[in-house]
Amino acid sequence: MNMTSFRALARFQLLVPVFVALLLVSICSVSYAADPLPSWNEGPAKKSILEFVAAVTDKNSKDYVAPAERIATFDNDGTLWVEYPIYTQILFAFERVKELAPQHPEWKTKQPFKALLAGDMKTVGASGMKGVMEIIMATHSGMTAAEFDKEVTDWLATARQTKFKRPYTELIYQPQLELLAYLRANGFKTFIVSGGGIAFMRTFSEKAYGIPPEQVVGSSAVAEFQDKDGKPALVRQPKLNFLNDKAGKPVGIYQHIGRRPILAFGNSDSDMQMIEYTMAGDGRRLGLFVHHTDAEREYAYDRKSHVGTLDKALDQAAAKGWIIVDMKRDWKGVFPGK
Amino acid sequence: MNMTSFRALARFQLLVPVFVALLLVSICSVSYAADPLPSWNEGPAKKSILEFVAAVTDKNSKDYVAPAERIATFDNDGTLWVEYPIYTQILFAFERVKELAPQHPEWKTKQPFKALLAGDMKTVGASGMKGVMEIIMATHSGMTAAEFDKEVTDWLATARQTKFKRPYTELIYQPQLELLAYLRANGFKTFIVSGGGIAFMRTFSEKAYGIPPEQVVGSSAVAEFQDKDGKPALVRQPKLNFLNDKAGKPVGIYQHIGRRPILAFGNSDSDMQMIEYTMAGDGRRLGLFVHHTDAEREYAYDRKSHVGTLDKALDQAAAKGWIIVDMKRDWKGVFPGK
Repeated sequence: MNMTSFRALARFQLLVPVFVALLLVSICSVSYAADPLPSWNEGPAKKSILEFVAAVTDKNSKDYVAPAERIATFDNDGTLWVEYPIYTQILFAFERVKELAPQHPEWKTKQPFKALLAGDMKTVGASGMKGVMEIIMATHSGMTAAEFDKEVTDWLATARQTKFKRPYTELIYQPQLELLAYLRANGFKTFIVSGGGIAFMRTFSEKAYGIPPEQVVGSSAVAEFQDKDGKPALVRQPKLNFLNDKAGKPVGIYQHIGRRPILAFGNSDSDMQMIEYTMAGDGRRLGLFVHHTDAEREYAYDRKSHVGTLDKALDQAAAKGWIIVDMKRDWKGVFPGK
Repeated sequence: MNMTSFRALARFQLLVPVFVALLLVSICSVSYAADPLPSWNEGPAKKSILEFVAAVTDKNSKDYVAPAERIATFDNDGTLWVEYPIYTQILFAFERVKELAPQHPEWKTKQPFKALLAGDMKTVGASGMKGVMEIIMATHSGMTAAEFDKEVTDWLATARQTKFKRPYTELIYQPQLELLAYLRANGFKTFIVSGGGIAFMRTFSEKAYGIPPEQVVGSSAVAEFQDKDGKPALVRQPKLNFLNDKAGKPVGIYQHIGRRPILAFGNSDSDMQMIEYTMAGDGRRLGLFVHHTDAEREYAYDRKSHVGTLDKALDQAAAKGWIIVDMKRDWKGVFPGK
């Protein structure tokens, strides 16, 4: 190397920190400018989320919340994935009854099993919550935890939703995936708090939403620790352990998480208590409901729906400061890749 | 700046990457060489931990476990903090009875409260599990979740352990703090799985052990979501919700965590089921028990102890591949700062 080129190189070297600084500035500007919620249309719902997250993560804000306390809870059915026209887990239970029927000759004469096997859904529906719980218990117990996991996983891999002809685990809401990722990137811990079965949801929550099993709170069956063919196993019992719905949601949050959320997101009157509990804490809070208003891209239902009834919450939202997320108005896209 | 000094600076600039590289190498060597478990004496227990963590975190090992599956569960009483001569939470309950006595004139004639207030611990002891549960229920219910938190926190701030004259939250085991930190540094998620009360432990678990409330699994009281003076609150009921002990521990793990641990650490026969469940999973596993053998630095007790009985587990350890951690032999230090 001659001295001239050495000097040129030396000069260049001196400039390296400047280049690096410029590069960093440009990277930071780009990531700052990028929209963390591209599937959300501009409007009051998106604005409320962005302002809330900015406020609770800004150390100089009076609303600052330490990362450990940034707990966000999401209902599942109708909030993170499609629940209409019937909850996915109920469909799974119905399918299992058909598969298990040969081992249960007594179902030929026992309601609501008889009606279900005959395709008489009107009679099944008329059996109400009691009948549906009988079907759930019959199909969700008697096996080990690992066996149940496999049954659900296998079913979800092949089942297709009626309207969209896609697997249920693809009928999750793209705007909510972005919101979950955005919250986590801002130090939040994201939880599911659902009336659905905890073991059912845990089979797909991590892959679908990035929410690990230990951050899923749901309804549960009693389980027993037993010796199963010489190996210790957890065996699911035909008995409800906990119903994580309505007033059960704040209880489930207390027992499972042990902290009050600062953000809660639901879609039906069954989520009101979770959101009331969230909003009643000190400091800044955010409570949101998905309003299913999009008959074309998904479904339109609310006050009179048999699933995900949204009625009282719609009436009380304005007075209580709850944000109603209007699917048609507020979501640019609904499902991933669509 | 003249050209000579400019050239000297330029030469120096050229050397900067070399310095940085050398610095990085030296930092990495130092951290690699540093003992992650300085309060553990060299021996089979420490060796088993280091080898286990190395194997499950090495992508080229047949024992590799993905970070999401690296679940480690720890009993609390006698495993993470002192439990002898009596569980801390029971002492808290006894103290609360004395404080609450003026509001409960009926306790003057009702056992085991009468005996407790008279300091007749023999009669209290003779009331057995049933009597102790009555005392627990009377002192752990009737208040909101927030009120109970405050009562426990206030008590722990002033109470002192008999032998060591230190707060209970300082009588935590330094070797275990190092192990928890070492596991977390290696991608593990650390949980408490204890027979103790979940709400009691959550008041100090994060500060004492770095384990957040949502990673504490324990026994619980029923809670109800109620309107309390116009504000929604969780009110603790005088009814056991779940006893997270013995065969209840794997059940608690299933309901709460939803994954089987790959490492479990206990100290008594009450932890056997948790460790059996852990060890029965596929792949490499590690199960450990603290054996309290150190009458001088802590306590020595095992087979015939009224708390933390370690008997059957001692007999079965060798055959089942469980590691017995001998406090006197394996721990260089016992408490932080001592």
